[in-house]
Amino acid sequence: MDKRGQFITVEGTEGVGKSTNMAFVKQWLEAKGHKVIHTREPGGTPFAEEIRELLLSNREETVDSHTELLLMFAARCQHVYQKIKPALEQGVWVLCDRFTDASYAYQGAGRGLGFDKLKELEDWCLKGFKPDLTLLLDLTTEVGLERAKKRGPVDRFEQEKVDFFNKVREGYLKIAQAEPDRMKVIDASGSVEVVQKHIEQSLISFYQKVQSA
Amino acid sequence: MDKRGQFITVEGTEGVGKSTNMAFVKQWLEAKGHKVIHTREPGGTPFAEEIRELLLSNREETVDSHTELLLMFAARCQHVYQKIKPALEQGVWVLCDRFTDASYAYQGAGRGLGFDKLKELEDWCLKGFKPDLTLLLDLTTEVGLERAKKRGPVDRFEQEKVDFFNKVREGYLKIAQAEPDRMKVIDASGSVEVVQKHIEQSLISFYQKVQSA
Repeated sequence: MDKRGQFITVEGTEGVGKSTNMAFVKQWLEAKGHKVIHTREPGGTPFAEEIRELLLSNREETVDSHTELLLMFAARCQHVYQKIKPALEQGVWVLCDRFTDASYAYQGAGRGLGFDKLKELEDWCLKGFKPDLTLLLDLTTEVGLERAKKRGPVDRFEQEKVDFFNKVREGYLKIAQAEPDRMKVIDASGSVEVVQKHIEQSLISFYQKVQSA
Repeated sequence: MDKRGQFITVEGTEGVGKSTNMAFVKQWLEAKGHKVIHTREPGGTPFAEEIRELLLSNREETVDSHTELLLMFAARCQHVYQKIKPALEQGVWVLCDRFTDASYAYQGAGRGLGFDKLKELEDWCLKGFKPDLTLLLDLTTEVGLERAKKRGPVDRFEQEKVDFFNKVREGYLKIAQAEPDRMKVIDASGSVEVVQKHIEQSLISFYQKVQSA
């Protein structure tokens, strides 16, 4: 089995249940004997978390869509080069709440910057570095937003309209269609038990693939 | 005469006298009857100034060179699309303390990321948008740092070593050599009067060119 750690990301729009299910994935991997760190984007290091605060705070000034994307990738570079890659090289598994796919979905599809423009920036920053496995928790926008509202005050992204989140969801599903080996679509509409059964099936398949590599 | 405002930047390493000389340029242009705004990079809008604070504050965490550059361009996009371009289109002249040339000099040459890597990001962000005139205040590193120290506490950039600033200076001079029509090298080693005489000569030539356009 490969001694390098594996990089697993969890994606999805608001209210799909990322937190609950990431805890489940972490426990599952730890039960297999791996050291696992749980991190998130934007953020993951103290400096990247400061960039996250800039991005998520409500403000009067219109934030240019290029600016938003550059800040996302600034935080991402810091996270990848200072935390994720060093951990993977030490054999630690990294479980991350959102990654580059979220930029494609939110800024590329949602804000209409386009996937090509995203790809240029991804190549510039990450030179081909991608998750080994991505679990996309998929839910209709209406159900997701209803669940998100119950959690508390909404941030700048959560204030966006249903139309925007529909585009984000379509963006995610387009990536899943293009990269079915890496990105697994998990129907997140069922009960926690049913959703986690599906997640476990994806983890088992992935784990077998890694072990045989 | 072109009704669009002109975009003039002032560049140089630490302690070359940008502040004093920018005030002189502003007065000179205002005496010609132009409305002039004086701005700076990184910064220039409230949000871009917040990004500036992130960039300049001292911290223990190593800042990845990609992260630094992306933050610079994030602030720059915000500045260009929310402030500089709208002003120029209204016929206002914009005078800016540092711009993209500083990224080439500091990150491209100083930190060794290379001009090609910079060019990719510049194209992605600015699509060919450049200053109409750039005044490069040039001084040997030793004299510049000696002057900068007298101003007060040093920030993260000013703490860098002489070797770094020598590379930055060489980076600036390389751009001036490649784009002699846009970037004018001003010897900043003389007295304020002598330096401003040289600046005035560059402004007169530039002004004649703009008037005849």
